[in-house]
Amino acid sequence: MTVDAAHPTPPLPDHRPHPGPGTPRDLRALFTPNAVAVVGASNDTSKWGNWISVQALRMRERRPVFLVNRRGEPVLGQPVYPSMAALPQQVDLAVIAVPAAGFEAAVDDALGAGAKAVVAITAGFAETGREGRELQTRLAERVRAAGAVLLGPNCLGVLDSSSGLHLSSNALPPGPVGLISQSGNMALELSRILAERGLGFSRFASLGNQADLTVADLIRAYTVHPETELIAVYSEDFGDGRDFVAAAAEANAVGKPVVLLTIGASAASVRGAQSHTGALASDSSVIDAACRAGGIDRVASPRQMAGLLESLHLFGAAPARRTAVLADGGGHASVASDLAEAHGLTVPEFSPGLAAGLRAEIGPSAGVGNPVDLAGAGERDITSFARTLRVLLDAPEVESVLVTGYFGGYGEYGPDLAAAELAAAAEMGELVRHRAKPVAVHTMYHQSAAAEELQRLGVPVFRAVEEAARSLGMLVRHAPVAPAIRELPAPAAPLTDDGYWTARELMRTAGVDFPAARLVGTPDEAVEAARAIGGPVVVKALGLLHKSDAGGVALGLSTPEAVHAAVADMADRLAPPGYCVEAMADLSEGVELIVGVRQDPRFGPVAMVGLGGITTEVLRDVAFGLAPLTPAAARRLLDELHAKALLYGVRGRPAVDLDAVARTVAAITEAAAAHPEVAELEVNPLLATPHGCLGLDARVVLA
Amino acid sequence: MTVDAAHPTPPLPDHRPHPGPGTPRDLRALFTPNAVAVVGASNDTSKWGNWISVQALRMRERRPVFLVNRRGEPVLGQPVYPSMAALPQQVDLAVIAVPAAGFEAAVDDALGAGAKAVVAITAGFAETGREGRELQTRLAERVRAAGAVLLGPNCLGVLDSSSGLHLSSNALPPGPVGLISQSGNMALELSRILAERGLGFSRFASLGNQADLTVADLIRAYTVHPETELIAVYSEDFGDGRDFVAAAAEANAVGKPVVLLTIGASAASVRGAQSHTGALASDSSVIDAACRAGGIDRVASPRQMAGLLESLHLFGAAPARRTAVLADGGGHASVASDLAEAHGLTVPEFSPGLAAGLRAEIGPSAGVGNPVDLAGAGERDITSFARTLRVLLDAPEVESVLVTGYFGGYGEYGPDLAAAELAAAAEMGELVRHRAKPVAVHTMYHQSAAAEELQRLGVPVFRAVEEAARSLGMLVRHAPVAPAIRELPAPAAPLTDDGYWTARELMRTAGVDFPAARLVGTPDEAVEAARAIGGPVVVKALGLLHKSDAGGVALGLSTPEAVHAAVADMADRLAPPGYCVEAMADLSEGVELIVGVRQDPRFGPVAMVGLGGITTEVLRDVAFGLAPLTPAAARRLLDELHAKALLYGVRGRPAVDLDAVARTVAAITEAAAAHPEVAELEVNPLLATPHGCLGLDARVVLA
Repeated sequence: MTVDAAHPTPPLPDHRPHPGPGTPRDLRALFTPNAVAVVGASNDTSKWGNWISVQALRMRERRPVFLVNRRGEPVLGQPVYPSMAALPQQVDLAVIAVPAAGFEAAVDDALGAGAKAVVAITAGFAETGREGRELQTRLAERVRAAGAVLLGPNCLGVLDSSSGLHLSSNALPPGPVGLISQSGNMALELSRILAERGLGFSRFASLGNQADLTVADLIRAYTVHPETELIAVYSEDFGDGRDFVAAAAEANAVGKPVVLLTIGASAASVRGAQSHTGALASDSSVIDAACRAGGIDRVASPRQMAGLLESLHLFGAAPARRTAVLADGGGHASVASDLAEAHGLTVPEFSPGLAAGLRAEIGPSAGVGNPVDLAGAGERDITSFARTLRVLLDAPEVESVLVTGYFGGYGEYGPDLAAAELAAAAEMGELVRHRAKPVAVHTMYHQSAAAEELQRLGVPVFRAVEEAARSLGMLVRHAPVAPAIRELPAPAAPLTDDGYWTARELMRTAGVDFPAARLVGTPDEAVEAARAIGGPVVVKALGLLHKSDAGGVALGLSTPEAVHAAVADMADRLAPPGYCVEAMADLSEGVELIVGVRQDPRFGPVAMVGLGGITTEVLRDVAFGLAPLTPAAARRLLDELHAKALLYGVRGRPAVDLDAVARTVAAITEAAAAHPEVAELEVNPLLATPHGCLGLDARVVLA
Repeated sequence: MTVDAAHPTPPLPDHRPHPGPGTPRDLRALFTPNAVAVVGASNDTSKWGNWISVQALRMRERRPVFLVNRRGEPVLGQPVYPSMAALPQQVDLAVIAVPAAGFEAAVDDALGAGAKAVVAITAGFAETGREGRELQTRLAERVRAAGAVLLGPNCLGVLDSSSGLHLSSNALPPGPVGLISQSGNMALELSRILAERGLGFSRFASLGNQADLTVADLIRAYTVHPETELIAVYSEDFGDGRDFVAAAAEANAVGKPVVLLTIGASAASVRGAQSHTGALASDSSVIDAACRAGGIDRVASPRQMAGLLESLHLFGAAPARRTAVLADGGGHASVASDLAEAHGLTVPEFSPGLAAGLRAEIGPSAGVGNPVDLAGAGERDITSFARTLRVLLDAPEVESVLVTGYFGGYGEYGPDLAAAELAAAAEMGELVRHRAKPVAVHTMYHQSAAAEELQRLGVPVFRAVEEAARSLGMLVRHAPVAPAIRELPAPAAPLTDDGYWTARELMRTAGVDFPAARLVGTPDEAVEAARAIGGPVVVKALGLLHKSDAGGVALGLSTPEAVHAAVADMADRLAPPGYCVEAMADLSEGVELIVGVRQDPRFGPVAMVGLGGITTEVLRDVAFGLAPLTPAAARRLLDELHAKALLYGVRGRPAVDLDAVARTVAAITEAAAAHPEVAELEVNPLLATPHGCLGLDARVVLA
């Protein structure tokens, strides 16, 4: 692929043995243990062994908690055991927070004592280099061999609100969100933002180095956890990326959205991640493709994540693009309308019936077109807000409502108006609760009693109108796209060379049409081949990596003399091992496409489509999807191109045969996915015409 | 122009007589009056006449304040005069808040009593329709005839912190920002956000209907007001848009940035504005072009406006693209890096020297590449933050710093750490004050004492990392671009027809090269013309609006027979009044451009350039600028095109002669600007080659 080669392909990582992608792990010992041991318990308040012990001891009413350290002195006034072997009972879960040097012994002690889950706080493994990575891999194997699971190492703990399990350094508020995070501070910031809005966590698992349990394993555990309604993931490294996507798709299938905050949009973030965890990052476009395949919502900040989680929690996943803007002032009405459209909503003009209904409620001075501008009606009668909102929510043409401006500030006029405003807020809250349409409120008085009442009743209130608009817009982008992750086909017999003819035959066998062609060795054979093919031909010299740049391609040869001369010239200049003589395609009716597949270290084969020429090379107008693609998925990818109108016919040209193009793209991705030894495969150009499509060149690069 | 025709061109508005664009008005009576009269003073707390009186009476220590109403009863315990004529002294400024029916009499009373400025709160004029517009225009003329100025009508008052003038319904905090706003609620929201950050207003003028004083007049008054450091504008209607741009350019020239919040990015906001003020809105791309010409910063929300004003106030207008990210955790480091780049900053890898300097300060576990990840160094020693910030601010390679994450939260560990963190914040504040580089801090503990200390010391603190990144990014976009607003040339003799030949001759006379051509009337004359021209020719039928679509263009006619047949065929089908026979240009080496100029109702002639074919038609890759353009401005416009690489040569093609293209684009815009009767003018295609450029078709539409 010629586009987005900023991140060179790193070597494939060592894949650790694992029960296998797609297999749910039994995580009951991790989230609902019979008892807990904190290994490395400490009185030193600067140590994890202290913080975790403090949290752990708080849950003693739910289950036995044992503190373990080698010295055996009391910690936090509690008795301490010198080892897990010395505990008075079998304990499901061991939290290990000892120095790295003692970690292996602590794991063996825990497994020996019958622990079925290990939470490894201890750091100093894969993030320190190859040796640490190998050590954590060996330990993870030992844990699995004992029938147990390992979270971490280098993790910050675990929490399950429903089972009263609190084993992290900070207390986190309970709620409907299942969080999986590779960063403790990200988890903390998210928890602070959610708490402001009355939300919190059903479960939290700190990922650490994913030596055993992966993001995918945890997503699967959350998917079957009744108290988890939404799944939030902060991860810099996806391990087996396709398994992550598959797990997210499974969660989506049972109505649990997966919201992802990750990195990789800049070289700097990749540098940062590599420096602190040794993470293997994928290109941001590839992550976007993975998100589409898994129906995953990608966000860019903790605050965006919290906003989307809140909206999904309150309003579900119903797409709601057609928004009514309700303001008490022309400026706010117009600014909010612009921002709503900038965030992917539409603010369509109301039907005459709806406008008349609004007019009846709020009088002649109001603007009732959309945006609605109360224009003082709110000031004259604060109930105008609720009455207007009712009319809007009852109108089938309105799918969501963005309230913006001054509401919340009327209370400053005096106690009577304050009470009336609070009552109006309560009525608005009731309306939103019963109408099942998304509503977001922006008010410049976001700390007013009325704003707090709205928030309490489940109407999200924002202090910035752009945040309110974005929260509604994110719900639209979330609109259900059927997750489309396909299993990789069984590997085919590996290619043994990367020549043009091999690539061409691979594609031809997969079902891609190519012009008639013959392999020849001499100018005379080329003349004979051209005669047999008929019409003008193209001659390509074989065995060159960049045959076009090297002068190894001659186009539009119409006479035997021209063919002979072209081959003789290439022989002189390039001495190639042979030549391919091909029929020259008629480019006049077609649109040139580029189709490629590249192996990503995390997400496996990733397909790219683009329109040839300037839209790909100059404008980088390309789209990515996880390979193999179905024809339907290929069609959706083509529709993502900004210049897709070219495929549908512009300037009086006919549309190309999009079904044939989609079938061909799908076939290319299917073949590439069956050849993991192929690092890159490209058909470029693929000429799409009204009557089908034709590969004009093909290329493979072996890993 | 074929692009962006969503908003049809409305008829030009009635332009009221005005001292003339570019002429500064004397606004001393408005902002520093000797005395003030409130006409329509009232005890009714639901009325403007009451609110303004309350504010006005507060400034009696600075200047006499007189209350006036027709009934003459005391208001707010103060004596009331029945008219301004009855006042004991001449009063510069009259604030009129009477019902619309009494407005005209009140204005006459004020002028008769010697008022030199009228603030017209009274509404019910242009916003109600044509009759109201005519009335306000007549009254404005009367005010000007008396040598006075009028703010409004339909406005919300005026404020001058430096002269102690408070004549609006709300008290606003003092500060360096001069605000001009068409919306009271926008002004109020901006004031609330600025106040949170310790900022406020030097002056505030509510625009209202701009019957006399315009945005431009007020910008000019603020430009010479020493206490105004930055100018903020919320406006939906720019009146004479070119005068607005010129005034903003003048403000910029003396170092006072102009930040604009306006509408028009969606059809809904335009609908909203028209419904509540009858504003005449321009296309959003045109407003962007105007902003570029005036060096104006356009923002999308009050919060963005406040953020940029704060940054400009604290850090000035120095462009600072190369940002260092400083975090105390890998997740925040990476997420902030991605967001910084998304907002137009770069997060480049540090030089080895800088990395070594950081390493010396913060130890082996930290990430020192950029992003900087303290990785616990802050927790071990809170002074790490200030020490790291010092190294970064002292490095010439670092132009700004984005601090993100946990700082502010260490204080929760106990009183010792709280005191140490506060001291670290104070040191960071001192550093920022002395290093003159922009710094923005995001912390999840944005309400902590340390965060408040930073904010107090002039380090902007944000609760969302994306807001911090945006605030630095907006400073980069503000990077000084020399304002480029040119006066319109004197009108040339108006065109009397819109035929192809007229358009072509207009452009040819302006200096645009066209292929050799002749006008003919018959097939035989066409053959003769083709012979004289030599080579293949094009024949175009005259007198057709869309000659190509109608079959009125025949290309590549190489023989006399072909020319004869083509003309005869057109004669049969179309019976045109004549034909143009032109030399056929060689398209093989060129890039087709489209160049157009359209009259905007507010901003006059606006130029558009785009690359021909799909980049304009399918991808809408076009750029706009106020006409006439200089060659240098035309060149900058071409460089804004996403597909500009085509002009510089791709796929082995040579670059086109960009100087010639820029000269030609400038000439087209100059000619169009001299013809206000031409609603649209287009040269399409303009063929750019390595050796110059050539117009291949031209079109005008008369207004």
